[in-house]
Amino acid sequence: MSHAIIIDTDPGQDDAIAILLALASPEIEVLGVTAVAGNVPLALTQANARRVVELAGRADVPVCAGADRPLIRPLVTAEYVHGKTGLDGADLPAPAAPLDQRHAADFIVETVMGREPGTVTLCPLAPLTNVALALAKEPRIASRLAGIVLMGGAMREGGNVTPAAEFNIYVDPEAAARVFACGADITFVPLDCTHQALTTAARTAAIRALDTRVARAVAGWMDFFERFDEAKYGTDGGPLHDPLVIAALLAPDLFAQKRVAVSIETDSPLTRGMSVVDWWGVTGAEPNATMLHAVDADGFFALLTERLARL
Amino acid sequence: MSHAIIIDTDPGQDDAIAILLALASPEIEVLGVTAVAGNVPLALTQANARRVVELAGRADVPVCAGADRPLIRPLVTAEYVHGKTGLDGADLPAPAAPLDQRHAADFIVETVMGREPGTVTLCPLAPLTNVALALAKEPRIASRLAGIVLMGGAMREGGNVTPAAEFNIYVDPEAAARVFACGADITFVPLDCTHQALTTAARTAAIRALDTRVARAVAGWMDFFERFDEAKYGTDGGPLHDPLVIAALLAPDLFAQKRVAVSIETDSPLTRGMSVVDWWGVTGAEPNATMLHAVDADGFFALLTERLARL
Amino acid sequence: MSHAIIIDTDPGQDDAIAILLALASPEIEVLGVTAVAGNVPLALTQANARRVVELAGRADVPVCAGADRPLIRPLVTAEYVHGKTGLDGADLPAPAAPLDQRHAADFIVETVMGREPGTVTLCPLAPLTNVALALAKEPRIASRLAGIVLMGGAMREGGNVTPAAEFNIYVDPEAAARVFACGADITFVPLDCTHQALTTAARTAAIRALDTRVARAVAGWMDFFERFDEAKYGTDGGPLHDPLVIAALLAPDLFAQKRVAVSIETDSPLTRGMSVVDWWGVTGAEPNATMLHAVDADGFFALLTERLARL
Amino acid sequence: MSHAIIIDTDPGQDDAIAILLALASPEIEVLGVTAVAGNVPLALTQANARRVVELAGRADVPVCAGADRPLIRPLVTAEYVHGKTGLDGADLPAPAAPLDQRHAADFIVETVMGREPGTVTLCPLAPLTNVALALAKEPRIASRLAGIVLMGGAMREGGNVTPAAEFNIYVDPEAAARVFACGADITFVPLDCTHQALTTAARTAAIRALDTRVARAVAGWMDFFERFDEAKYGTDGGPLHDPLVIAALLAPDLFAQKRVAVSIETDSPLTRGMSVVDWWGVTGAEPNATMLHAVDADGFFALLTERLARL
Repeated sequence: MSHAIIIDTDPGQDDAIAILLALASPEIEVLGVTAVAGNVPLALTQANARRVVELAGRADVPVCAGADRPLIRPLVTAEYVHGKTGLDGADLPAPAAPLDQRHAADFIVETVMGREPGTVTLCPLAPLTNVALALAKEPRIASRLAGIVLMGGAMREGGNVTPAAEFNIYVDPEAAARVFACGADITFVPLDCTHQALTTAARTAAIRALDTRVARAVAGWMDFFERFDEAKYGTDGGPLHDPLVIAALLAPDLFAQKRVAVSIETDSPLTRGMSVVDWWGVTGAEPNATMLHAVDADGFFALLTERLARL
Repeated sequence: MSHAIIIDTDPGQDDAIAILLALASPEIEVLGVTAVAGNVPLALTQANARRVVELAGRADVPVCAGADRPLIRPLVTAEYVHGKTGLDGADLPAPAAPLDQRHAADFIVETVMGREPGTVTLCPLAPLTNVALALAKEPRIASRLAGIVLMGGAMREGGNVTPAAEFNIYVDPEAAARVFACGADITFVPLDCTHQALTTAARTAAIRALDTRVARAVAGWMDFFERFDEAKYGTDGGPLHDPLVIAALLAPDLFAQKRVAVSIETDSPLTRGMSVVDWWGVTGAEPNATMLHAVDADGFFALLTERLARL
Repeated sequence: MSHAIIIDTDPGQDDAIAILLALASPEIEVLGVTAVAGNVPLALTQANARRVVELAGRADVPVCAGADRPLIRPLVTAEYVHGKTGLDGADLPAPAAPLDQRHAADFIVETVMGREPGTVTLCPLAPLTNVALALAKEPRIASRLAGIVLMGGAMREGGNVTPAAEFNIYVDPEAAARVFACGADITFVPLDCTHQALTTAARTAAIRALDTRVARAVAGWMDFFERFDEAKYGTDGGPLHDPLVIAALLAPDLFAQKRVAVSIETDSPLTRGMSVVDWWGVTGAEPNATMLHAVDADGFFALLTERLARL
Repeated sequence: MSHAIIIDTDPGQDDAIAILLALASPEIEVLGVTAVAGNVPLALTQANARRVVELAGRADVPVCAGADRPLIRPLVTAEYVHGKTGLDGADLPAPAAPLDQRHAADFIVETVMGREPGTVTLCPLAPLTNVALALAKEPRIASRLAGIVLMGGAMREGGNVTPAAEFNIYVDPEAAARVFACGADITFVPLDCTHQALTTAARTAAIRALDTRVARAVAGWMDFFERFDEAKYGTDGGPLHDPLVIAALLAPDLFAQKRVAVSIETDSPLTRGMSVVDWWGVTGAEPNATMLHAVDADGFFALLTERLARL
């Protein structure tokens, strides 16, 4: 099955690998990449997005900038995870192609409304500000999208930025609340899943062994990225979050899933940004999302390595 | 002093009178009217806005539609106050001129960024969704505006929709939080002020006596509008909220004002949408808005009547 | 009409004056005084309560200590208002009589359950921790009390410790929530009322002119107490809060009152401790308290002066 | 090692089994049983507690009643889990011995303060209202207790009454907040642990095979209790929550544990009553409790069966 997608992103090493995985996959047409403030500020994420499409030789893919901060809260970034540039671990040249002048939210609206209903999938790998703004401007995109497949949230694993909240949802919980309530067909990849996809030394070595320019960059990012998480979680390797969104389109059989009702906590300082999953159905609420709660990690890394070899 | 303004509005009888007051005033250039969901749904507010500019013979003023619901909450409307059409009390023909196709937020951004800094004043008379979206899309408008003069909030009067919250802020508290924190020069007209500007029988009669088409419509709205509030507050006449925003531009000396720090409550179900005013300065926070807390009601209605006579 | 009362208190200069007013009034029998942490820590408030009853020559009145902190929050005190001792402004000797060994909550329960139904009035002048604990231990006191007349809350005046909250409610909002929901006949004296009862120089002088030991102490407290509030509010004199509770028993005609539904905000950091008063009846909730929203200040100070002359 | 304990409880079938396990164990001296409203109202829980000690032939153990509702919220019960009596599944005669007339909170305070420091362990199996009241009345019990070992909370499992909250914490989150912050040595047994201790048919049969009056009652309760949870969780048997608290005293080696910082959510309707566990240490907060996060279920049921055989 083929997919026409828009990637909304805040690169971020794992975002970059997700973009490369998409561009390397013939089943996927990347209609555009939209950048948002998140892991690092917008000025970096939009430039990094352009760096990454150019690394893949795809300067033709439009890259648009969007929101420079969350809907109503001050921006929280994560340089302590991603380094100062957001792409520490590999040196990429400054982008040659210019930024598309459309605002990310406008690009999303125009693209989704301009194509046939049910043909565009939105793949957010970042705080959901741009997506919420697109929904605010044109609520009809919710029913016109093929679906939204996003990285974010946490249930059993607890959060990675607070005890209750995962970073992407925490940074803009109001945006996430709007997205999860929008009525689109939503699939989310929470930490429960991503913490199973660890960048072990063996997996990184397999990619480095491809010995291409792309593979060396990816291996460099995996090396950098894992350092923080290895220390934090005491694991061999860190979780490679965002590429799982693309893998979910390419190989859904790699994942275990469950339909659940998800609400986003926006009120309490203690639990703000928590994705509250009604796993046992105690609320009686209708499920509004599909949770990918487990992944075949070996299968995923085999897929990633095979695809990166094509670039 | 002259003002170039954009009116963001959800007509609403008092919105309509505010628009007419602005169009009747030579000191004010109305650059455009942007509609938002609020008192009644967007389909009505944008059509009503066009009806009103056409009633004033000003079909040349662009009218744009914006958000059909708040940033993240379901829309709450107030037909129990404004009637089913939003303009009950006077029959206006369907608008002849088409809706401007620009989204309200885009119109605001383009207009503010396209004119000289410090020359455009934004006059929101409605939930602040459009304004928040404009700020989200282009944060630089905050410093480029001459100012924002808005109707909303309540301190001593308590709320009109809940014990703590005034309608415009209550409907989209997240949008209000963004606006009050944006750094622009903000002036707000809360219920404390508007509850002093009552549509007494004598004041309505003075307008009706102008015996123009516009005056008859305004008097009809004032008659309709007051019924609900007279019953609620036990006063002679109801508060005529929104025109005070325009009056504050025309005749600032009619108002008493104080610089205050205002925060918007977004977290608690009990107090959501409250404009928390640090009247006594107990927080030590820097003031972020000018509160117009009292008005010379006779002076205001004299001004209103004199200006309506020109249309 | 005569009243048998328990005073729950955190002296505090105005608490002390309230206790003296009660002890000076033949219509009132003070069954006991219970101390709680509030203006200053419990060790001071219980000793101060004993100092004050002894100043009045009433060492026979039992004084019990209760909670040393709020139900679930850390204690917040107000030495910046009341001075380090809580009774700065007059030097009273250390108390001679011992503390009653019963816990304040037990004293309240035993006294109320041990006397005829409808004969005991509870007069809290402090955070409501002791009262909430008594209700938790014996919920039947709610229906057995003649009533609760308390100093606390704020509506139009805004708060005195945060923009939204008055000190007594703010310090233990959970206790206040329990008390206001308990079903007893509740009357509250909010800042709206107390800010009308100012310790002007003339009123303080009239009391000092009594030239008794008690009067000199009271005048000293009024001098001290007003300094902070004069600076804060820019008035002649500061509000003399707590004695109004006793005055409401002695001379109810001095007050304007309204039955209202009151809820206590416990959830939000911004508005925590606010007494949310449904003044306009917008919620449809049944009134649960009588708000004394205005006072004849001259009448009150005349009463206070006349009574203090008796001690 | 021997333990002198107070069991605070809302029987409840699993509470009853916990009490029996304690009474059957020579290492444990049960100083008293205190009842609180929870699974069913207080009138039932206090009578049920007496029924259970009498079933064990231990009418000498004092049983005290405490709070009939949470600190500030309306009582929520769980008859849908425990049946109308709280002990559905076995018919026990009405208790013969009278209720101890001391309030549960007073009993706890007197017992803890009246014995040597560090010699009494508090074992709450219910909403923490009584414990919070005891702490409010005498904060020094926190440092005088040997420890608090309680059943409550949930992390990876999610809640059983809402998606985020376990029943005991949910019913009185303010009490739980006070207890977890009190400074005592706290160990908690959350759903993560109890959901591993399932009342499978084989385990129930092993107890029934003891063929004593006690064993038949316990087997009857296990049969009843599991029905609801089997349907809910799709497991063989339901979790046997409360006896794990007693097992943790008897055989700590059966459990896996981790020191963690736990905060209780009290503010948000969506997540109220959640035990927010900082599993990864992202907050930097000092651990305040020991979480028993896993149990050797076979070992636990072997212990339980062996001990019940002694009664």
